Amino acid sequence: MPPVNLAEKLATFDEHWQPRVIGTFNHHDLMVVKVKGEFVWHSHAHTDDFFLVLKGRITIRMHDGDGDVTLGAGELFVVPRGVEHCPYAEEEAHLLLIETAGTPNTGDVATAAPRRTI
Amino acid sequence: MPPVNLAEKLATFDEHWQPRVIGTFNHHDLMVVKVKGEFVWHSHAHTDDFFLVLKGRITIRMHDGDGDVTLGAGELFVVPRGVEHCPYAEEEAHLLLIETAGTPNTGDVATAAPRRTI
Repeated sequence: MPPVNLAEKLATFDEHWQPRVIGTFNHHDLMVVKVKGEFVWHSHAHTDDFFLVLKGRITIRMHDGDGDVTLGAGELFVVPRGVEHCPYAEEEAHLLLIETAGTPNTGDVATAAPRRTI
Repeated sequence: MPPVNLAEKLATFDEHWQPRVIGTFNHHDLMVVKVKGEFVWHSHAHTDDFFLVLKGRITIRMHDGDGDVTLGAGELFVVPRGVEHCPYAEEEAHLLLIETAGTPNTGDVATAAPRRTI
């Protein structure tokens, strides 16, 4: 894969909660996504969920008793596999996500965003 | 793991080419590192090598015929497993690295930096 400028990739689309694959790494998808508002509660049984905030601020609500985690730009968090979570952003935020290749973003292929590469 | 502020972690040390583990993700180490000057030519047989530049600029020289890749802040690149490479930074640069847990940074346990968690 060629080098990737994350801001340039993010400038190519506007939709929220529709990750774009910008590379692969050890059988994982490297993705950028724009988010705003509340996503759905979900979990991933077979992969941890890597979040790095590139711009803005997000809160990741969790059902595991640890409560909410709020992240600003330059902050990362890993939701462990199997933990129910619900990302939320009051204003638009930009993220780098990493998950096992092909993981449905809602935890369910029936409702997942299509996996698009840019 | 708790949320990680990358700049705060980087502020806790000064050495170059001495990665610090700041979290784990799907059996990978998430690391921050400060680099300056030239590293050693090396390869990793069993893991791709993820580089995201957080500050500054690096060049990754490669022996696979593709030549050099230069990355600035907000740019990422994955060196495929098995590809000989030599990172170089004229001025100090700060990076997020991801590799399979325990991978020696020089490709050789005899010469690798100790794997330290902060």
